[in-house]
Amino acid sequence: MKWSKTGVKTLKEVPADTALPSHALLVRGGFIKKLTSGIFTYGPFMVRAIHKFENIVREELNKKNCVEILMPMVQPTELWRQSERLHIYGDLLQKMKNRTGQEFCLGPTHEEVISNYIKNNINSYRDLPFCLYQIQNKFRDEIRPRFGLMRAREFIMKDAYSFDLNEEQAKESYKKMESVYQAIFSRLDIPFRAVKADSGEIGGDLSEEFHILAEHGEDELLFTDSFAANKEICPDVKPGDKGPDNQVLRSCRGIEVGHIFYLGDKYSKKMKLHYLDQQGNKQTVKMGCYGIGITRTIQAVVEHSHDKNGIIWPKAIAPFLVHICLLDPEDQKTRDLANHLYQSLCKKGIDTFLDDRDEKPGVKFKDADLLGFPLRINLGTRDRIKNLVELVTRPTGKREKVPIASALEKILSFFYTKPV
Amino acid sequence: MKWSKTGVKTLKEVPADTALPSHALLVRGGFIKKLTSGIFTYGPFMVRAIHKFENIVREELNKKNCVEILMPMVQPTELWRQSERLHIYGDLLQKMKNRTGQEFCLGPTHEEVISNYIKNNINSYRDLPFCLYQIQNKFRDEIRPRFGLMRAREFIMKDAYSFDLNEEQAKESYKKMESVYQAIFSRLDIPFRAVKADSGEIGGDLSEEFHILAEHGEDELLFTDSFAANKEICPDVKPGDKGPDNQVLRSCRGIEVGHIFYLGDKYSKKMKLHYLDQQGNKQTVKMGCYGIGITRTIQAVVEHSHDKNGIIWPKAIAPFLVHICLLDPEDQKTRDLANHLYQSLCKKGIDTFLDDRDEKPGVKFKDADLLGFPLRINLGTRDRIKNLVELVTRPTGKREKVPIASALEKILSFFYTKPV
Repeated sequence: MKWSKTGVKTLKEVPADTALPSHALLVRGGFIKKLTSGIFTYGPFMVRAIHKFENIVREELNKKNCVEILMPMVQPTELWRQSERLHIYGDLLQKMKNRTGQEFCLGPTHEEVISNYIKNNINSYRDLPFCLYQIQNKFRDEIRPRFGLMRAREFIMKDAYSFDLNEEQAKESYKKMESVYQAIFSRLDIPFRAVKADSGEIGGDLSEEFHILAEHGEDELLFTDSFAANKEICPDVKPGDKGPDNQVLRSCRGIEVGHIFYLGDKYSKKMKLHYLDQQGNKQTVKMGCYGIGITRTIQAVVEHSHDKNGIIWPKAIAPFLVHICLLDPEDQKTRDLANHLYQSLCKKGIDTFLDDRDEKPGVKFKDADLLGFPLRINLGTRDRIKNLVELVTRPTGKREKVPIASALEKILSFFYTKPV
Repeated sequence: MKWSKTGVKTLKEVPADTALPSHALLVRGGFIKKLTSGIFTYGPFMVRAIHKFENIVREELNKKNCVEILMPMVQPTELWRQSERLHIYGDLLQKMKNRTGQEFCLGPTHEEVISNYIKNNINSYRDLPFCLYQIQNKFRDEIRPRFGLMRAREFIMKDAYSFDLNEEQAKESYKKMESVYQAIFSRLDIPFRAVKADSGEIGGDLSEEFHILAEHGEDELLFTDSFAANKEICPDVKPGDKGPDNQVLRSCRGIEVGHIFYLGDKYSKKMKLHYLDQQGNKQTVKMGCYGIGITRTIQAVVEHSHDKNGIIWPKAIAPFLVHICLLDPEDQKTRDLANHLYQSLCKKGIDTFLDDRDEKPGVKFKDADLLGFPLRINLGTRDRIKNLVELVTRPTGKREKVPIASALEKILSFFYTKPV
């Protein structure tokens, strides 16, 4: 991708309504742009980070035989009456009437719809177990949208739903999903922690949250080496007290990015999800549900991983791996070299961004730090004449001049243990 | 993917409310399931076809330096007042109020939002041209939703918007997009036709529709070797008349799947999209917009490509390329062979589906024809003992028994010109 084709402009100043560094950086870098309170357009860089994280989520879920579907965003409100959640959600549920007066709402979660979807497909014990998921735009009419994507009204979620024969099998599914979540968040290369949690509006009697650790995280987490919980489920306990394992509790702050729930028959009973067992007796399906805030996770990563100059993307979800700063766009030979390197990297499958704007080097360097892609290549005429390019590593700021002839190999070795 | 993990059940009977074969087949095969009028859940197979087509669209757009973003589905109604389209769209525009009484609507198209998004990023002639697109869930409150995904209320669209300095440059962008559309639809390997068209609610003074040809298509198209138009723009002309090139007009039916518009300053004027030219004079940006109905295209492909037994997917968007029918799931050795072949094909990057259900061969054969993946492999104990498997080509029904030892190579050669 070339900057001149993106329509992106960065902002020098911290926007007024941004309380968190991650929110400010995402706005300043053109990753997100507010349309109205709690509703954002995702710019070209953000879309790439979203797709990369979505694909990590997909890969890990598919490995465990979870199957992707896609449910509607617009749902008949009637389903929420049936599940008796209409009043629990209250105004968070965005309602509307269509031209014939039928009542609909925008789905903030899909327990009702998936129960309805799957109902006629489960008749016998032979039809179970399975686990379906979707990655989807969701909506909650938050009272006070804030912190950018952290508490947005429109946001992207991965939500999964497991359907099992009995409690034992359902708890296996829950454990399996716990390990999938461990695998997903490990790939981000950012510290995270699974903690015991409150089930909130979703309900059920067993639940765990996944938090990305961040200094200004919304939640306080209490933990020892073998135990961890969100402080909200043990308000009278404090750091320094003993945990259930008799070790001293420590504390850190986190941003909730995932939540897994064992639901049992909480929804399946109300939504009449039954099957016939081997003896021909009617049984109620046992469910679990499992969420990951896709857009929220991306901002949480930025909240954990930035410095005063900008974002520091982990490679796994960096919108681009390489950022080429073409420093003298008016010099034909330098421009040709930049384009050549850009093409070569793209061909090698390295996601590369070329800053081809007609801007001063200082502007380009500042913007490269702000956008925070892992490896920057400075390509100017003075260096070119000496047959050199400069590599700058974003996390460390380390600079190195390398001969043009070996630049490609050097860059590839930055992303692969063995050069390709 | 293994059938037992999908939660999919097929239907033997044609559902009551399906007027088109494609609609009936998609419902019967579990590709789509109605939640309520005009609103569908996409099942596991459908999601894969959607992703494949989306990626074709992305690849061809990215090749031409179009850049992907993602705008919100929920839009302030105020923007539609500004563009003076609120009354033109009328009840098609699904409106709602949030908890504070602010008016919103669900986006059926995004000219307003993208103008708002891009406004502050265009100051100078140096900021142009560029072209942005998104692939997104959209909503129109249709009076009479019908024909499945053909006229659904919730649907997936690719919408692109070009921003240019002047009419000449904008018409180049329009021509470029025309060639992108040719490339996209060519990859489906299904006959299609670009025709002159009416601009409808979108407006602008130059537009072309792309139609997939189908016997029961909604639109009548008139064409010669060098000219083609939707009959709705020339209602008094009929097949047999002379076209503008003086050749005899023929007629066929089509399903509109794409539409490109040159907009000029129709929206940019109202949305105040201006830039300063080289002389420092204020100019109005020239726009174009370009849609492809993603879910509609997929049904149109099915409408064109099916027989009495089911769907016949073109390879480009087939949910799976290979469908393994495990005929004796209770036989351990046959099951092992099926799993081995399944794993081998997956490793080779061939999207493979394994029917591992405990069902009779006849049921599995019927379902395989209904789902319509390009190549079926019948794997039964009788053949296994003779070291054979049977390959069945969906489009032709051609059957061939091949030795197990050479089956993998044979299957791969079906999908690649040269065996891998």
